[in-house]
Amino acid sequence: MVQLRETQREGRTSEKKREILEAASRVFRRQGLHATGMRDIAAELDMAVGNLYYYFRDKEDLLAFIQQTTLSGLRRLAARIEGLDLPADARLWLLLAGHVALLNEETPGSLGHLEVEALGEERRGPIQEGRDAYERTFRRLIDEGVAAGVLQAPDPKVAALALLGAANWSVKWFRPDGGKSAREIGRDLADLLVRGLLAPRRAGNGFASPSLDLLTALLEPSIHPGEEP
Amino acid sequence: MVQLRETQREGRTSEKKREILEAASRVFRRQGLHATGMRDIAAELDMAVGNLYYYFRDKEDLLAFIQQTTLSGLRRLAARIEGLDLPADARLWLLLAGHVALLNEETPGSLGHLEVEALGEERRGPIQEGRDAYERTFRRLIDEGVAAGVLQAPDPKVAALALLGAANWSVKWFRPDGGKSAREIGRDLADLLVRGLLAPRRAGNGFASPSLDLLTALLEPSIHPGEEP
Repeated sequence: MVQLRETQREGRTSEKKREILEAASRVFRRQGLHATGMRDIAAELDMAVGNLYYYFRDKEDLLAFIQQTTLSGLRRLAARIEGLDLPADARLWLLLAGHVALLNEETPGSLGHLEVEALGEERRGPIQEGRDAYERTFRRLIDEGVAAGVLQAPDPKVAALALLGAANWSVKWFRPDGGKSAREIGRDLADLLVRGLLAPRRAGNGFASPSLDLLTALLEPSIHPGEEP
Repeated sequence: MVQLRETQREGRTSEKKREILEAASRVFRRQGLHATGMRDIAAELDMAVGNLYYYFRDKEDLLAFIQQTTLSGLRRLAARIEGLDLPADARLWLLLAGHVALLNEETPGSLGHLEVEALGEERRGPIQEGRDAYERTFRRLIDEGVAAGVLQAPDPKVAALALLGAANWSVKWFRPDGGKSAREIGRDLADLLVRGLLAPRRAGNGFASPSLDLLTALLEPSIHPGEEP
């Protein structure tokens, strides 16, 4: 019985944290990360600021939570995609399109994902490790595609970082009311970027993107607020 | 005579501001934009913090100066490149490679370029207009390439933003001691991204990049600290 109450309380806390994440995201998008204080986020939630401090010690604590949540979602997605029985170019496409979809659609606080420098050193360490591990998935898929002769990348490291940059930057310009869904934007971005990596013998024939339905199946459910990266 | 002294003073101020820009850039790279105060920048320069305030009213003032300087360099470069008698794909390549080179090599404070949200509304307006005008150059070159049949872009707006994102993100990972120059990184990025946009009939034959010498000629001298964007 005590056990049950404990679990219920954790469930409520987790749900509340997700609500806070969504409110913070709206405020960050509106006025930027720098200019946003805990007071603004509390106001967005119609919550006393003291109450907000019950869930997050300070803005950095909230930012760390945002980063952790986003990163664990990305890593779960990457693990699913790496294990698929598909050519490396198709898996790279899914990872890229999924990255854009997840940052802009499923993780409301993803603007914080761009700002790992905003965390203090203590918190930055484990998150940076998680990011590095995630980024290595891009490298592995590119290397695999090159080895299989379907991709070309004179500098796979630069290629991986170019892909990640284009995908991350979408957070700065994607608008939920912009006419295209985050998955469609992900598809457009991934089409362009994977085409840029195709080996010459493949490039002339073009690249047949995997379906958005497959992407959708891979994406859900991928966000669990507060999970370790 | 008074006129001459005035000019000399302005010259000294401008040089000092450039020094401050470089010092701020080093501190931003080391500890992030958020965690850096005017005090840290003054310490990096071995300067009294009161003296630093003579040149910049506050951190936002410094950040606005960084953004202005970077943006005016980018816009000058874009104007030069747009006027060249070269196919649209080659001009797009030069703009991309030049963007990466300029952000990472010629403009020391370019980390600030990513952070337009960090400026207050009053300062953000004119800089945002300048950024929009610059970004339209990408759109125009892509549209021109599509019209000429050398490029394909189902959604030219997404394509332009993908290119800009990949190029901007280089500021987060480029290291001057990383083995490749900023121009070489720019070339690698532009190769990948322009290849991704080639029309099918061109894609099989690949894309012959313009030379880095041409890029170098276009880049210099392109930075004038404090110039209006």
